[in-house]
Amino acid sequence: MTVPEQPSGPVVALDLGGTKIAAALVDGGGRITARHTRPTPARAGASAVLDALADAVRTVSAGASPVAVGVAAAGVIDPRTGTVTSATDSLAGWAGTALGPDLAARTGLPVACDNDVRAAAGPELAAMGPDATLLFAAIGTGVGGAVAAGGRMLHGAHGVAGHLGHLPSPEAEGLPCTCGGSGHLEVIASGPAITALYGRLSGRPADRLETVAALAAEGDAHAVRAVTTGAAAAGRVLGGLANALGPDRVVVGGGVTGIGPLWAQALDAAFAGELMPPLRGLRPVAPALGHDAAVTGAAALVRTLPLHSPGAHR
Amino acid sequence: MTVPEQPSGPVVALDLGGTKIAAALVDGGGRITARHTRPTPARAGASAVLDALADAVRTVSAGASPVAVGVAAAGVIDPRTGTVTSATDSLAGWAGTALGPDLAARTGLPVACDNDVRAAAGPELAAMGPDATLLFAAIGTGVGGAVAAGGRMLHGAHGVAGHLGHLPSPEAEGLPCTCGGSGHLEVIASGPAITALYGRLSGRPADRLETVAALAAEGDAHAVRAVTTGAAAAGRVLGGLANALGPDRVVVGGGVTGIGPLWAQALDAAFAGELMPPLRGLRPVAPALGHDAAVTGAAALVRTLPLHSPGAHR
Repeated sequence: MTVPEQPSGPVVALDLGGTKIAAALVDGGGRITARHTRPTPARAGASAVLDALADAVRTVSAGASPVAVGVAAAGVIDPRTGTVTSATDSLAGWAGTALGPDLAARTGLPVACDNDVRAAAGPELAAMGPDATLLFAAIGTGVGGAVAAGGRMLHGAHGVAGHLGHLPSPEAEGLPCTCGGSGHLEVIASGPAITALYGRLSGRPADRLETVAALAAEGDAHAVRAVTTGAAAAGRVLGGLANALGPDRVVVGGGVTGIGPLWAQALDAAFAGELMPPLRGLRPVAPALGHDAAVTGAAALVRTLPLHSPGAHR
Repeated sequence: MTVPEQPSGPVVALDLGGTKIAAALVDGGGRITARHTRPTPARAGASAVLDALADAVRTVSAGASPVAVGVAAAGVIDPRTGTVTSATDSLAGWAGTALGPDLAARTGLPVACDNDVRAAAGPELAAMGPDATLLFAAIGTGVGGAVAAGGRMLHGAHGVAGHLGHLPSPEAEGLPCTCGGSGHLEVIASGPAITALYGRLSGRPADRLETVAALAAEGDAHAVRAVTTGAAAAGRVLGGLANALGPDRVVVGGGVTGIGPLWAQALDAAFAGELMPPLRGLRPVAPALGHDAAVTGAAALVRTLPLHSPGAHR
């Protein structure tokens, strides 16, 4: 690991998810000049994932000479050590992987890496003032997030900062959580959680969130309740976190945000209902960046995080 | 407001609470060389409180020439503007007071001011490493706190950062909160909240927390439940906040921490039960500084915060 430098020249940005690897070549001006996507070998182990990432770097940078790699990855990542400190089973054997050092060794390039949600939040933070506090939530198949204060993205011990899905939620009381605990926000507010709640309420399991959202739009009482309960649970915890942190901006992104105004209104109302008097004008907003947020954020990591160098590999 | 300087020479430290004003003269080496305490004119309005603070400065610094004043005060304080942005009714008319500028004008000295819990947490943070993350809770007549990350105390928008008592708590569901919301941690975990819960459970109102603690120590089932419910509620929210922030250290202080091992054990167990895998070794600890924490912290504010100067007063 070396202190951050300012690589000039193109960088490779990688967005590693449980399903696919999205790679982009990003020039010094932040423009994407090449793209490459491949499936994630999610069940084949960490070494196979690292090989696939290295192949994606080579493929997307064909004919160019990138100066560094920025990786936005699923899991709890400690950017200082470049290690995956914890992970769910969406990537087999991912916890413990020395992502930064091992990818640097495979590619011969310096590598910066971070959790994918923090990476996506980075450009949001950069667009704010120099001393900004940002609360960023990503509500999709899980509930993740990022917290920045004093203009700096927080990483926290073991890289866990930003895990907003593992606070107690009254609406989730008694439900087992993916982390081993129970009653956490993630198990009532994520997309799969809303779908599962609809199944418990109606006695008729739904195949996916979009089905529940469509039923809610038609006025189905169980679907309305599932959607608004998940939204309100998220709004309440985010409002409480706003009281604890005093953010200048609260951003809510992720796949669940697209399911319609019923969800968004329930989130807003619950959020507003939690706020202490000085914060009462605060409302959640959508991310400023669209679907390229993760790769744009990944590219930016090489300018803000420690770089793991090929030479430093054990 | 001026940029922070490093006043050398004695400073006056003030700890303003709803009942009393504690003043101390602190020399350049951090030693307390004089003390003065007077009642807070809590019902007489902000101007009377400011007059009492100024009198306390004059009294405690008799014969010395202090170079600055540091104030640790109840209420939500924005150290940048020096203003009380919000307050409960423990001090009449306190919200909106220009504490820093007005006390500077009254004393002729530069003044730094902050919330009393953040002030007390400052020396805890200073004793940690340069990039430390600290979660500090104060559980007493209310539930307050302080959050520091990257070695810096967070103030947040309007100075609200650290208000840990206003997150949703499953145990507090439906109970009205002092902030105007409901279901917040403060109304189940504070001392008065535990006392009130005992009254609701037993049908026999208790006069104060110590009575409930004594009953719990004797095995009274309602008292045990009141104490452990308040402790568990605090432990759960603090554990969830630990997941969101990744603190290196979690400190729990305040009057309620002294009520016995039943409370402390319930807090610890509930905290531990919330933690994500990478944090599982983390446990709350008591503050390193004792009853002088607030004045020691108030004195330190003049080295870390903006100073409001007498000349800059409107």
